[in-house]
Amino acid sequence: MITSDTICAQATAQGGAISVIRVSGQNAIEITSRIFSKDITKAKGYTLHYGHITDPQQEGANIIDDVLVSVFRSPHSYTGEDSTEISCHGSRFIVQKILEALIFSGARLATPGEFTKRAFIAGKMDLSQAEAVADLIASSNEATHRMALSQMRGGFSKELSELRDQLLQLTSLLELELDFSDHEDVEFADRHQLNTLSETLFLHIKRLTESFRTGNALKAGVPVAIIGAPNVGKSTLMNALVHEERAIVSDIQGTTRDLIEDIIQIQGITFRFIDTAGIRKTSDRIEQMGIERSLKAAKQADIIILLTEPNKNFPDIAIPSVSEQQEGLPIILRVINKSDLVIPDSSYLYHRKNTNQDLHISSRTGAGLPLLEKALVSAAHQILSHIDGNDNTIVTNIRHYEALHHALEAITRVQQALSDGLPGDLIAEDLRQCLHHLAEITGGEITSDEVLGNIFKNFCIGK
Amino acid sequence: MITSDTICAQATAQGGAISVIRVSGQNAIEITSRIFSKDITKAKGYTLHYGHITDPQQEGANIIDDVLVSVFRSPHSYTGEDSTEISCHGSRFIVQKILEALIFSGARLATPGEFTKRAFIAGKMDLSQAEAVADLIASSNEATHRMALSQMRGGFSKELSELRDQLLQLTSLLELELDFSDHEDVEFADRHQLNTLSETLFLHIKRLTESFRTGNALKAGVPVAIIGAPNVGKSTLMNALVHEERAIVSDIQGTTRDLIEDIIQIQGITFRFIDTAGIRKTSDRIEQMGIERSLKAAKQADIIILLTEPNKNFPDIAIPSVSEQQEGLPIILRVINKSDLVIPDSSYLYHRKNTNQDLHISSRTGAGLPLLEKALVSAAHQILSHIDGNDNTIVTNIRHYEALHHALEAITRVQQALSDGLPGDLIAEDLRQCLHHLAEITGGEITSDEVLGNIFKNFCIGK
Repeated sequence: MITSDTICAQATAQGGAISVIRVSGQNAIEITSRIFSKDITKAKGYTLHYGHITDPQQEGANIIDDVLVSVFRSPHSYTGEDSTEISCHGSRFIVQKILEALIFSGARLATPGEFTKRAFIAGKMDLSQAEAVADLIASSNEATHRMALSQMRGGFSKELSELRDQLLQLTSLLELELDFSDHEDVEFADRHQLNTLSETLFLHIKRLTESFRTGNALKAGVPVAIIGAPNVGKSTLMNALVHEERAIVSDIQGTTRDLIEDIIQIQGITFRFIDTAGIRKTSDRIEQMGIERSLKAAKQADIIILLTEPNKNFPDIAIPSVSEQQEGLPIILRVINKSDLVIPDSSYLYHRKNTNQDLHISSRTGAGLPLLEKALVSAAHQILSHIDGNDNTIVTNIRHYEALHHALEAITRVQQALSDGLPGDLIAEDLRQCLHHLAEITGGEITSDEVLGNIFKNFCIGK
Repeated sequence: MITSDTICAQATAQGGAISVIRVSGQNAIEITSRIFSKDITKAKGYTLHYGHITDPQQEGANIIDDVLVSVFRSPHSYTGEDSTEISCHGSRFIVQKILEALIFSGARLATPGEFTKRAFIAGKMDLSQAEAVADLIASSNEATHRMALSQMRGGFSKELSELRDQLLQLTSLLELELDFSDHEDVEFADRHQLNTLSETLFLHIKRLTESFRTGNALKAGVPVAIIGAPNVGKSTLMNALVHEERAIVSDIQGTTRDLIEDIIQIQGITFRFIDTAGIRKTSDRIEQMGIERSLKAAKQADIIILLTEPNKNFPDIAIPSVSEQQEGLPIILRVINKSDLVIPDSSYLYHRKNTNQDLHISSRTGAGLPLLEKALVSAAHQILSHIDGNDNTIVTNIRHYEALHHALEAITRVQQALSDGLPGDLIAEDLRQCLHHLAEITGGEITSDEVLGNIFKNFCIGK
């Protein structure tokens, strides 16, 4: 990966009193100096210079703006390369002219996230830290901010490094056994020690994997699926929830955004409603297939709203009873819509089982909606309760989650093999896989361009 | 004006990869140092420092963000005071936390434009330069950018300073005459020299005053008034112009924005349609009064669209003939709406005078609108032609225009008095007034808090 070319981009948002343009690469200082009124080619790092930028493409009155230029010398910069930051007046026109001047002088426009990508390549940060930069910028509350900052500052990386050390210890113990088992027919390694260590690793990786549910709910919103037969009023309910005195947030970058239908804030908590479209009533069999498809889509949901209407059954899905609603399973809210169609003292209200669990609402009149919102908030608190009171790492990134999930599968196989008394050489392969998947998170091993591309494409330009 | 307290504000727009927070005042470096991981109280000016900001209100894990801090020492800063700039990740949450930390540590939130106001008070720039900062930020094209940059860098200030020198020279000549006229009954000063100098001054101030028409048209859009009797279709025409493949720009800060109805871009030129509402047809007399009111509002218009419908007269206003349409007078476009109501070969089309001047349109069908747009663009080019080919100052600020207008009145009185042969002591007072009004532009004399307040209230916070 050759990164010797010099990139530039606006690093601040459009508008404001000040805009900052970043330049990074082998010739960053040289190129900036060419369009700057002062020679900064000999300037020390971490110094500031006041002067003006001139347009190299124009004769005569060619001053673009009075600016401040910051100089950074490799490796003491964000990217690890020679860099400058040009602080100019916050005019779109001026920023455009300065970028054009830089490009004319030999720089090129940066791709999204390219500055951070270069920081990763230069070893200034690992992948999980680089990803945390984007999360930090997107963080909008204390919890997401704390998670992202801790990850950016290497908290998660340190934890993974400790896991890796333990896995390597386990591997050594097994290899020791292997070496000796070639020569002598004994099990050298203390299987009890192996079991204890693998159990510790299993529990640790499991905790990290499970924390993603909380992390994702915090970062992207608590996922909610509304499941119901056609025409029970799913869309009307959505609209009623959306229109009641709260904003639709449309620009949150969710980890599973393809499925996002609507993001709704209720009492400060973000809910992400998963699209369960696809149910079409053409025959009972097809309808059943549709419901199954919805259920599949709703697998990621932390909260499922089972929606029906008076005198109709709830959708026939396997609902865990309250006692079964342990961690990891979605919380079910049973909601009966169109309550306005029913005479209040209608007998059906009193003859249903679990009446105290069912919520009666009317999306049309708004009746019962405050109670539904209260139930949603209460369920969200239950889901987010993990983040209270401890400083444990919470995984927020779906790429990390997937790697952890694979690592968990591998360590589970290790445990099984150990308990089955399988020989060490069979176990070693799974240990290597576990190590590999954990290393994917920080990018410690060689990371493919494709993976890097996927990570940085969602960054803003200038980061 | 005590400015010893320390102010802080976000200087960049919300969002982006980076946000910058400005701190300025006697204790700016001390206060920043209190929440920064490094002691910068001894740091030199124009240096950068990497570290983290901590939340002084929180125990334990209280890191808010990793940041870069720029240090500026009085008087070598934007405000002339000790200052810092904190460059953090572009998260609204982080910016808010850092501002809270600064305020907790003794700073206060800046008012709009307060940094620039302090720069003015410290003598870092005069008023016209300070005002140009806001114009520079708002500049969206080559012409407005060039005007604002030149003004910010002191081009206009220098020109005013030269005018001032000439006025003082004129005053000295007159005072010399006065001194001598007390003792001897002769006119000492060479009246010819006086006449020449005052004529030069008059022409110079007149040119500046008149340049405002161009400057305002460039900055705020070419002002257009649509004048017509009720129900001839003013609103329909507006809507037709707005909806035809162009954007309504609603956030341009016009100098006369109270009257703005709509800002429309046609072929890259901004047109500002002045609200001529107020015409109510209750009787012919009232209608006439309404038209007069519209005409008054349209006095600032550079282009007047006289709108009527078939078989009705154009509004009865004093329209200068083409030969009379000299510089400074609005350009008149005569437009007949509702052409779709008329059979194409209707006799009225052929029996009107000036048929070749009148545009036939239908706001309803869109017929004729391209021709009207062409006429608008052509008229705008005529108005903006001043900015081509010379580097003369163009006045863009209504406060400057008003001061110049008063200065022009004063110098006109001086000229009249000289030609009437009035004695020097009567002329001197008008000269002093002329000087006073020119000084208002740069704020060279003591400027009232009210004037300063009006100037800076439209700045963004952080500038």
